Amino acid sequence: MIINGFSYAAARGRIRDKDRLDIGLICSDAPANVAGVFTTNKVKAAPVVLDMERVADGRAQAILVNSGVANACTGQQGNETARLTASFAADALGIPEEMVLVASTGVIGMQLETSCFERVMTDLTAGLSADGYEDVAKAIMTTDTVPKVSSKMVAIGDREVGFLGIAKGAGMIMPNMATMLCFVMTDAAISTSALKTMLANSNNRSFNRITVDGDTSTNDTVLLLANGRAGNELVDEVHSDNFLKLQGALDDLLLDLALQMVEDGEGATKVVTIQVKGAGNDKQAEQAARTVANSSLVKTAFFGEDANWGRIIGALGRSGADFDPERVDIAFDEVMMVRNGLGQDAATEARATQVLKQPRFTVTIDLKEGSGACAFYTCDLSLDYVKINADYRT
Amino acid sequence: MIINGFSYAAARGRIRDKDRLDIGLICSDAPANVAGVFTTNKVKAAPVVLDMERVADGRAQAILVNSGVANACTGQQGNETARLTASFAADALGIPEEMVLVASTGVIGMQLETSCFERVMTDLTAGLSADGYEDVAKAIMTTDTVPKVSSKMVAIGDREVGFLGIAKGAGMIMPNMATMLCFVMTDAAISTSALKTMLANSNNRSFNRITVDGDTSTNDTVLLLANGRAGNELVDEVHSDNFLKLQGALDDLLLDLALQMVEDGEGATKVVTIQVKGAGNDKQAEQAARTVANSSLVKTAFFGEDANWGRIIGALGRSGADFDPERVDIAFDEVMMVRNGLGQDAATEARATQVLKQPRFTVTIDLKEGSGACAFYTCDLSLDYVKINADYRT
Repeated sequence: MIINGFSYAAARGRIRDKDRLDIGLICSDAPANVAGVFTTNKVKAAPVVLDMERVADGRAQAILVNSGVANACTGQQGNETARLTASFAADALGIPEEMVLVASTGVIGMQLETSCFERVMTDLTAGLSADGYEDVAKAIMTTDTVPKVSSKMVAIGDREVGFLGIAKGAGMIMPNMATMLCFVMTDAAISTSALKTMLANSNNRSFNRITVDGDTSTNDTVLLLANGRAGNELVDEVHSDNFLKLQGALDDLLLDLALQMVEDGEGATKVVTIQVKGAGNDKQAEQAARTVANSSLVKTAFFGEDANWGRIIGALGRSGADFDPERVDIAFDEVMMVRNGLGQDAATEARATQVLKQPRFTVTIDLKEGSGACAFYTCDLSLDYVKINADYRT
Repeated sequence: MIINGFSYAAARGRIRDKDRLDIGLICSDAPANVAGVFTTNKVKAAPVVLDMERVADGRAQAILVNSGVANACTGQQGNETARLTASFAADALGIPEEMVLVASTGVIGMQLETSCFERVMTDLTAGLSADGYEDVAKAIMTTDTVPKVSSKMVAIGDREVGFLGIAKGAGMIMPNMATMLCFVMTDAAISTSALKTMLANSNNRSFNRITVDGDTSTNDTVLLLANGRAGNELVDEVHSDNFLKLQGALDDLLLDLALQMVEDGEGATKVVTIQVKGAGNDKQAEQAARTVANSSLVKTAFFGEDANWGRIIGALGRSGADFDPERVDIAFDEVMMVRNGLGQDAATEARATQVLKQPRFTVTIDLKEGSGACAFYTCDLSLDYVKINADYRT
């Protein structure tokens, strides 16, 4: 989908691989309002540190992104690299250096060669086009097997506003700012403060609710650029109808991208929703859902298509959430496998096993303590997860 | 090693498998002082609930244990089963029912058939012998590939005191009362209160410092029986020389068993010590060590024999421990791979890779914040871990 005023290009920078797109450029034809969410990891990659600085003033115009090398744990040289590569893009685009954001993904601890960027910068800017986003989505893939793009339209007054999101996920995905890169472009006219609130809300409802392996990366970045080119009346009030419409569209967009990430989780063969309800409060529901969603034993049972609810109860029991083990219900889709803490008969288990054979299903856990609820999205832990991660650098 | 006054037997109870030892009995010829440590999981198996009650008064004489079915999440029927099986043993041994402790390991959520115990009880008691502990070690194996036994001798005054430990581990192993069963028999004369302190101390230094997969089970149980048959002067004072000698022996014994568990962790090909030093305090060191030891990405890198220190720094960064990423040192055995947050040259990495090819090595992390330190023991995450856990019930 075309978003007014945005253009995209990708190039082969030969950062680690000679023959793939590994550098992408996203550009707005005028300065845009910007909001960002970044990794909560204490160890922050150089591009994250730079973006956090630059996003603070609420304006940006371009994003330069690469895969192959994460530019994390690269010290002062890494910081200089991040700045220098941004300046290459700024020069080529004829915009101030501070208006360029950067993002990197890939191996930690390796220096990023600035010459890779220098070499392709002219081609990149020459190649910018309004429909070039698929190439950028490809350029940021690491162990992703498919590019991830999503778009939404929403009417604000008499104007159509568009949102386009590009993301990568796959490994090192975990709640609390799920690890990934995600760039969202919108032509909405919206103030920076409203934009920040909107991104924080949507992020909590999507990327903070997914897990692949419980690890967080040093490079997590979500950037949202709004260039106002749709020409709608400026949205500034965070509880206004128009704000809520935009929020709804962004919620849908980010959740769609988050689920694409889980589906393409390293080695994943199944996408599983862990729905906890009846918790004492939402926080406890989240603790319970996250612990189940991250349990290696639960995730290998999903891979084995084994309705091993004992492992789910075991994970609930160490989650810290309050509940009475003798009152818990657990269902696999519609099949109520556990009632009041007790497993049901073999016929029920056979039906539950059929549910687990599907590529997508929901585990619903009722703690019967209160009205707290939380949905988490996870995948199974497969042989391929181990293969991918044992071989990633070699 | 023979421990005065203790005898052991095992039998084929056909609980889930027709042709293996799955029921064990441990017996002291007189009532012993007892201490126990149990799972911190909110969901506690029936035998754990029963033992917690019975251990409270400080005296016990026998332990009846089974594998195959965990008797967890089995409701009131499970509680009755635990009591009933204990009473079978008490009747056969001619001792009070309250003097029998029970333990189970295996599948959660399935009822344990009491007839399996009834059938073999006469044979079990008839078969009790002072050197029968290897059979008990075999009877409690689930996905363990080898039985786990360890023993220590220590002189207290003019008497030799012995400790014999039998354990099972393999899956669902995680710090904070690592999941497993462990029974320790000693002929030391020691008061119940001193025994409790000693067990709590040793447990913290061993089973609470290992991890296989970050999951805790519903059945964790460590029991320590002391029957006083060595005839040493009663040890009662927790800072006395004799107490410290016994403590040293128990520390060694439990750490040995803990390391055997890690070595035999499901699918494990390597035992890795994560040594954190220079933390702000011991608690932060523990947080850091535990997070690294539990990281799926770190553990798959170990399996891949990849000195991927970026994943270690990533895990440190989300551990919550305070440190400056630009000051951290990381060594693989003697090879200093990271200095002040920066990776060293390719030659160093080649040497680090050689270290990772060994079956045992140590990762030393210096946070350079203070004097806090903690060692954790973990294993790699291998293809076989997934195979074992995807197929466990089928």
